[in-house]
Amino acid sequence: MSTLPVGPEIEQLLTIISRLPGFGPRSARRIALHLLRRREGVMVPLAEALATAAATVAPCEICGNWDSQSPCRLCEDEERDGSVLCVVEDVGDVWALERSGAFKGRYHILGGLISPLDGIGPDDLNFGPLSQRASAGTVREVILALSATVDGQTTAGYVADRLEGLGLTVTRLSHGVPIGGELGHLDEGTLAAALQSRRDFS
Amino acid sequence: MSTLPVGPEIEQLLTIISRLPGFGPRSARRIALHLLRRREGVMVPLAEALATAAATVAPCEICGNWDSQSPCRLCEDEERDGSVLCVVEDVGDVWALERSGAFKGRYHILGGLISPLDGIGPDDLNFGPLSQRASAGTVREVILALSATVDGQTTAGYVADRLEGLGLTVTRLSHGVPIGGELGHLDEGTLAAALQSRRDFS
Repeated sequence: MSTLPVGPEIEQLLTIISRLPGFGPRSARRIALHLLRRREGVMVPLAEALATAAATVAPCEICGNWDSQSPCRLCEDEERDGSVLCVVEDVGDVWALERSGAFKGRYHILGGLISPLDGIGPDDLNFGPLSQRASAGTVREVILALSATVDGQTTAGYVADRLEGLGLTVTRLSHGVPIGGELGHLDEGTLAAALQSRRDFS
Repeated sequence: MSTLPVGPEIEQLLTIISRLPGFGPRSARRIALHLLRRREGVMVPLAEALATAAATVAPCEICGNWDSQSPCRLCEDEERDGSVLCVVEDVGDVWALERSGAFKGRYHILGGLISPLDGIGPDDLNFGPLSQRASAGTVREVILALSATVDGQTTAGYVADRLEGLGLTVTRLSHGVPIGGELGHLDEGTLAAALQSRRDFS
């Protein structure tokens, strides 16, 4: 990339873009050319949208969701059911669950998972406000919507321990065959879980 | 995407990113999450690099290349051979040729191709300065490095006509089998061209 005779401004742009996930030098060049061709229509608005979002979006003081207001729109939404709290790893999980349209309760975003190997302990995550919220009296059920990985399950166990004695129902997502998934491509663990939690065919 | 409870700042960002080439709603969400997670380290620098490049980069008054200075670095480079002029469609072609390292002359960027179907005629492209440069006395050869498409060849023919009578050598890139290309996957036109312009095996 340093062999391109582009000057420091374009080079800096190419360097930053090529380090984004899913990008390499070639795709960085392609998108930089696209942007430079559409300077007023795309490049300037993108720069402004990035700067605005970077300056205004921050974690919600209650749930940890990213929004330009705190409490965030989800915490302020009176239509949502405050008796069910869904604990997730990060904001991407909130977006995914919201797209499913299947959850109308409230969220709590940990901002990561407990990971002893990476040196991430409970104190590095957003646990404090969780106990407060769970013991405030309005919450009836806590859903642990965490990844089915070692770190996810360690974290789920920790949350469950922490909520013990509060008289709450603590649940987790079910394991099983993904919709549209082919059995032949599934790992044994998922198949075993799907068999164990089989349901009446109706 | 409008179902995400993200507020106008993130929504605007998602909208712009999802319209970039190679992006859709899903990849826009992924990269927006990546950026929001690395606000100071990546998102703000990217916003600044985009704004800086958009504000400073402009076409070179001589060749049409994009640079923050005009004449651009390529036109100012005394090491380059001013007797050979390579005519290309756009700046991406300059970048590609520079990466090949095989050309040390100067460039002329048309900023597009003549395309009657799209209503693009010679007056819409950077032809004026080309005749000037070609007739200034320093240029000996003009290489037409244009795409082997209908529009590319129409444009090449137009340039060649325009340069007639100036006593210049006008050349074009050779056609043939791409390096690393498999014969079985090549179209008949390319194969025919590669046969016709076969060379001594040495």
